[in-house]
Amino acid sequence: MALINGQAASRLSFLDRGLQYGDGLFETLPVWYGEALCVHRHLQRLARGCQVLGIPMPDTETLQREISTLATGVERGVLKLIVTRGTAGRGYAPPHHVSPTRILSLHPWAAYPPSYWSHGVVAHQCRVRLSRNQLLAGVKHLNRIEQVLARRECQTYSCPEGLMLDTSGWVIEGTMSNLFLVTDGQLITPCLGHCGVEGVMRAIIMEVIRSERKVPLRVKAIRLPSLVAAEELFFCNSLFGIWPVQRFARRTYAVGPITQHLQRELVRRRVVAHG
Amino acid sequence: MALINGQAASRLSFLDRGLQYGDGLFETLPVWYGEALCVHRHLQRLARGCQVLGIPMPDTETLQREISTLATGVERGVLKLIVTRGTAGRGYAPPHHVSPTRILSLHPWAAYPPSYWSHGVVAHQCRVRLSRNQLLAGVKHLNRIEQVLARRECQTYSCPEGLMLDTSGWVIEGTMSNLFLVTDGQLITPCLGHCGVEGVMRAIIMEVIRSERKVPLRVKAIRLPSLVAAEELFFCNSLFGIWPVQRFARRTYAVGPITQHLQRELVRRRVVAHG
Repeated sequence: MALINGQAASRLSFLDRGLQYGDGLFETLPVWYGEALCVHRHLQRLARGCQVLGIPMPDTETLQREISTLATGVERGVLKLIVTRGTAGRGYAPPHHVSPTRILSLHPWAAYPPSYWSHGVVAHQCRVRLSRNQLLAGVKHLNRIEQVLARRECQTYSCPEGLMLDTSGWVIEGTMSNLFLVTDGQLITPCLGHCGVEGVMRAIIMEVIRSERKVPLRVKAIRLPSLVAAEELFFCNSLFGIWPVQRFARRTYAVGPITQHLQRELVRRRVVAHG
Repeated sequence: MALINGQAASRLSFLDRGLQYGDGLFETLPVWYGEALCVHRHLQRLARGCQVLGIPMPDTETLQREISTLATGVERGVLKLIVTRGTAGRGYAPPHHVSPTRILSLHPWAAYPPSYWSHGVVAHQCRVRLSRNQLLAGVKHLNRIEQVLARRECQTYSCPEGLMLDTSGWVIEGTMSNLFLVTDGQLITPCLGHCGVEGVMRAIIMEVIRSERKVPLRVKAIRLPSLVAAEELFFCNSLFGIWPVQRFARRTYAVGPITQHLQRELVRRRVVAHG
């Protein structure tokens, strides 16, 4: 089921700039027992993305109402929200008057094996690199060919997730998730100043750690050897929560105490759709 | 008017991966007196792009037939061809069976002032940078947010075209065109090994110059000072042919003899929709 600009529909104009140029943004939210989780955070990130791209942010109350309409009665599912710069004539130049398109759609729950959460995953090292551009860094926009090609590699190697470097060799994130590592008792996550998506689950994890004041948190530029030296390693996103990395580049990792603690916290705070 | 997978239509599924991820390619062809120009070259570039993205290339004869259907009876217009990885469920991973979507549409001719061709344009130096990724370099894919934002700058500064650098400061191209310069009697065009679109008009110009064996041609990495030192400077694309640069970054340029010669050649070879 989908709502396009508030109407039940499944088709839209081929002139939509989302199709023509990937000129838009998206959010993916878990739905659990009739409710989309962390709606406020997702809409905040969407608003930031709209600001970067210069797309007028759709009315928040309208979006909340539409999200609620789609989520009602759904035990478990995935809600995807796309906002584009709307329909226009040919040409890169945005039209003078922009009327954004909003597309809300409901999808089946991503039913990953529970062992990915409890025992971790094998992570593929993707050959596809992320391109760097400070302007678009952090933003969850619709230009996702790099992720598509990286994801195809994961399929080829039968890995649930893949680790991506940028074109300068910095470790950035997973193909569909952010990355954390634990080294010397510190929690570290790659700096996303040049590329990567600022994930909602990443932000939640950072808040949890900061509020507890037990484990030091660092955001920094990371190279591959740091991963080999890490004690714990995990991916996170809004849908699956946390997947510990079990094996990456010939190293194996145990599911460590900080990873397990964070998993328990996500369940306790009801920001993941299970537990 | 548009043909979507061969049917007259103006709408397509919101699940098309062209919309969801910008997962596709496009071509823009001038139509002149009932005929799309340089069809073969555009389809060749499309095929190369399909290969890079791993999208099955649609049947060439079908595309040619559909192009011809749209172009028939049109005095002057713009034909746009989009090929996407087709419709699929949510998630970056391409589906196992891909049935590409092809969208052919006809648009009004881009009626630029004739003075842009004869006297040149003022070029804006865009603040938006092109990101670098060898994998996608040269390909005319649907991930075009950088061009959209750069084009918006050109609107702001009322410039017909803008010059784009990549994130490392190399001069690459225009927002919707390629770039050539003349220095010491040599024709030079930026190397597109890390970003940029390998334009059809750029390829034609390179062929003309090579076949004549009069003016040496070099493809090389270029910095901004090379532009200041250049004798001639011009943009090119399939729609407008050649636009000499009249002014860029406080320097003015005359429309030089090599630029004028190439303009005459494009008209003589009937690869531009005027003259």
